[in-house]
Amino acid sequence: MSDIATETLTGAGIGQGIALGRVLRMSAPLPEPADESSARTPDEERARVAEAVATVAADLRARAAAVSGTAADVLEAQSMMAEDSTLADDVSQRISTGKTAERAVFEGFAVFRDMLIDLGGYMGERASDLDDVAQRVIAALAGRPAPGVPDSDEPYVLVAHDLAPADTALLDLTKVLGLVTREGGPTSHTAILAREKAIVAIVGVAGADALADGSEVIVDAGAGTVTVAPDEAQRADAQRRIDERASALAGGLEPGALADGTPIPLLANLGSPDGSQKALEAGAEGVGLFRTEFLFLEQRMAPTVEQQREQYTRLLADFPGKKVVVRVLDAGADKPLEFLNDAHEDNPALGLRGLRSLRANEDILREQLTALADADAVSEADLWVMAPMVATVEETRYFVRLATEYGLKTAGVMVEVPSAALLADRVLREAAFASIGTNDLTQYTLAADRLLGSVAAYQSPWHPAVLRLIGEVGRAGTAADKPVGICGEAAADPLLAVVLVGLGATTLSMSPAAIADVRLSLRQHTLDQAKRLAGIALAADGAVEARDAVRAAIAGEAPTTPERDEAP
Amino acid sequence: MSDIATETLTGAGIGQGIALGRVLRMSAPLPEPADESSARTPDEERARVAEAVATVAADLRARAAAVSGTAADVLEAQSMMAEDSTLADDVSQRISTGKTAERAVFEGFAVFRDMLIDLGGYMGERASDLDDVAQRVIAALAGRPAPGVPDSDEPYVLVAHDLAPADTALLDLTKVLGLVTREGGPTSHTAILAREKAIVAIVGVAGADALADGSEVIVDAGAGTVTVAPDEAQRADAQRRIDERASALAGGLEPGALADGTPIPLLANLGSPDGSQKALEAGAEGVGLFRTEFLFLEQRMAPTVEQQREQYTRLLADFPGKKVVVRVLDAGADKPLEFLNDAHEDNPALGLRGLRSLRANEDILREQLTALADADAVSEADLWVMAPMVATVEETRYFVRLATEYGLKTAGVMVEVPSAALLADRVLREAAFASIGTNDLTQYTLAADRLLGSVAAYQSPWHPAVLRLIGEVGRAGTAADKPVGICGEAAADPLLAVVLVGLGATTLSMSPAAIADVRLSLRQHTLDQAKRLAGIALAADGAVEARDAVRAAIAGEAPTTPERDEAP
Repeated sequence: MSDIATETLTGAGIGQGIALGRVLRMSAPLPEPADESSARTPDEERARVAEAVATVAADLRARAAAVSGTAADVLEAQSMMAEDSTLADDVSQRISTGKTAERAVFEGFAVFRDMLIDLGGYMGERASDLDDVAQRVIAALAGRPAPGVPDSDEPYVLVAHDLAPADTALLDLTKVLGLVTREGGPTSHTAILAREKAIVAIVGVAGADALADGSEVIVDAGAGTVTVAPDEAQRADAQRRIDERASALAGGLEPGALADGTPIPLLANLGSPDGSQKALEAGAEGVGLFRTEFLFLEQRMAPTVEQQREQYTRLLADFPGKKVVVRVLDAGADKPLEFLNDAHEDNPALGLRGLRSLRANEDILREQLTALADADAVSEADLWVMAPMVATVEETRYFVRLATEYGLKTAGVMVEVPSAALLADRVLREAAFASIGTNDLTQYTLAADRLLGSVAAYQSPWHPAVLRLIGEVGRAGTAADKPVGICGEAAADPLLAVVLVGLGATTLSMSPAAIADVRLSLRQHTLDQAKRLAGIALAADGAVEARDAVRAAIAGEAPTTPERDEAP
Repeated sequence: MSDIATETLTGAGIGQGIALGRVLRMSAPLPEPADESSARTPDEERARVAEAVATVAADLRARAAAVSGTAADVLEAQSMMAEDSTLADDVSQRISTGKTAERAVFEGFAVFRDMLIDLGGYMGERASDLDDVAQRVIAALAGRPAPGVPDSDEPYVLVAHDLAPADTALLDLTKVLGLVTREGGPTSHTAILAREKAIVAIVGVAGADALADGSEVIVDAGAGTVTVAPDEAQRADAQRRIDERASALAGGLEPGALADGTPIPLLANLGSPDGSQKALEAGAEGVGLFRTEFLFLEQRMAPTVEQQREQYTRLLADFPGKKVVVRVLDAGADKPLEFLNDAHEDNPALGLRGLRSLRANEDILREQLTALADADAVSEADLWVMAPMVATVEETRYFVRLATEYGLKTAGVMVEVPSAALLADRVLREAAFASIGTNDLTQYTLAADRLLGSVAAYQSPWHPAVLRLIGEVGRAGTAADKPVGICGEAAADPLLAVVLVGLGATTLSMSPAAIADVRLSLRQHTLDQAKRLAGIALAADGAVEARDAVRAAIAGEAPTTPERDEAP
């Protein structure tokens, strides 16, 4: 199968998809404008800037009008950034010192960008939006096409250094066969998008920047490989697997189950009632995580009980006879809410967030429970409620008691803090169920910020330490005969999903787009096999080793490492 | 034993000491100056401020001259704050609008204080120093005594809302029998100070603000109780226990051991070679944690190999034939070093710190290992080296390989990240020893910033989840026949020290002042008893329950909760 032209790149695959097609690159970022004296007068340069800014702002507004939701908001905000008067003054000032329009825009936007990054948090994340605006203005000044998503009539494999939110908003998914990026880890913005949209993707591919436009590639997300210039046999093999997978995924919306028939309900993660339809179409058997932040984020005040009741009622009406797990407000860290916690915190991820901040503002929690109980009373759905960021048995008791006070019968907790996993036996004495948030659990177990690029390598739920904690909760659930769900990114990884079931998870909740792949993967393993794979993953030294060992075991090349005592 | 006048307050006791004496309160903070128009002219008010500021600055400088080290630095810095020209301009401006000198000082200092708090980290911690300066200036303006530590010829029990660094620097320890504060948890600044200076202390006492000057109290740190107006029997009992304890503590400097003779070496935590003498006088059997940050913190560049070699050689020369565990540079989080990591991090405690940042700057790590190897070559001490903030088996392997490359034979790791504890069996396959940092381990296990007041309640190493992780490391150490030390605040708690040994710790390292109490406590229990107490603590629901259950068991009132499987 070898061929002198063939080359294989590796990265972090998202999901199990395979794609075969030709590369189209995002236009490369423009080079830094030279810092040389302008040949034009300052007034001429200023006129050029004004015209370029107007063009870019108009273009961004037009693009905003063509889309909806968050994408439209981001583009609208960018058009306002382009026309910001403080920025314009700064650029004009630089032109007065003899700089070219291009250089003045480059420097002026860079100063504001650095300020945003210094502010950190939500503001810091806007820096890449501002970079994108600067690139567009400089491109307009230079009479070059704006960088961004390529236009193509043929389906293609998109290759990019990284994707900006403005790019992803405009991706025509019917044309994108697959996605390969240089940057990003399994929980990066791009990876989450790929998972949500079920795009065949590999992120963090070291050689991605060298992939040339028009090269043919096979993108194998399950294997985490990009095969460049495949030979005929490789191409045929890929096409056969693409076809097989398509027919298997088209096989219907049966309930999630293992090969031996063990049911593993597949549920949807939703961020608002708007997502219900898509979840049902994907065959979701209920909602495993309904986030309620959307009700609060737009406002400087908490929503009224009435506003909340209306939304919860709408949600529950979509799932008659089905389970719907609602998480009460999870504020803090990356989602600060001023009315809940306006204190400065040096490490907000370790601060007054989740249930901690609700407890400090119990009125808001009581109002939310009131609205949930009201909606429950007029619904046919099976409503479960749970609290985020629970660390102790005492907190579990507090939340369950409060929920019970409002007549909410099934009250549980998120397990995302290591202490809650370590004391899962005692937590599950109080709670009706546990739902494991693998993203935060990984962050705390490895002590690595899941939003920080320099420690992204630690952020894998395949790490045996994280799997051990999940196994602790699974074992406690089995012993207490109480359900243990998974609602982090981990559940959407078809291979890891099998391991999680082997560790004792009884339900899996994920983006609706991920359900089909996970359903297919579960059907290929029995519970005994899943337990054996879990044991193999637990015995590994690290995340990569765990994943490789499980893959090898499935491929029939079981490694020699013996199963350990702690394997369930 | 009851008496109508007797009342018992509770809080977090530091250590095991007992004190009996009369209360002297820190002068209460001055009331907020009224916001009313001044009856004086602005120039008169400005002259009053100038005089008050000069008096306060001179007083602070005189106090700085009377002490040394950090205390002198803090007081010197405060005298400069008092005379800061930006602050003076702000106050003068406010006086121009008709405010009184007192009010202008109050408001002006408050603005700067809030700025410091917003800056966070090290700067934020300076806010209380600035508050103290403002109080002194306002007191001088009002002709009142400056708030602060009382003057007394008789020994007394100091009662305060909280202690400012400037206060503690000036405490005459020969006069302070005990310390009771309203604020603070077991790892607060005040608690750490009390532990270092072996002051009998209870922090976080809800009723402390109501304790009147001159009341007689018994402060029982071991029980965490303040008995107000004790009756004759209580007073006699306290005096008997004070005498017993004094004679037991005076019993010599034998090596640490359990009642059955099991040796548990007691080591010292040191922050510079200056502390060696005090450690040896306290009977330290070596150094369990030598922090090397002092070499780096004062500088914007790393110290040279030569500078480091000199300090390490000096340290090792003080401990011939004894074990000295040196931790390589632990930068990041609360101790940022620009030359190692100048990136903004939203959650520095979960960022590029410890070994992570050293690995990204390997030259600095190699220089440190070179200097350590050089010092080792000319020393009679038994040098061990360890890396901070190790999260994975791969990192362990990396550090051990590097240390070995420099001929350092005994290389180990700090266990302060949950993942390292969970994989302790695999970590100890690579490392020669493990040393558990209980402060950070607690922070990450409970996901609660150990420097953040609003989540201070989570910060107890008694939490059964933390104890379970310690037990994992202890068990792995026993299985691999490799030493497991403890070098966090937990080891200095005489009662917890016994539990830690029961969990498998083979050495304990602490502030030299804590050694005597811990030595005494260990001698009262056999290894079997320690294991039984560890099992009782592990079975508890929370930190308070664990401590109470262990106390009850020791008092012969063992609770009915059965020992669990996971107890070692």
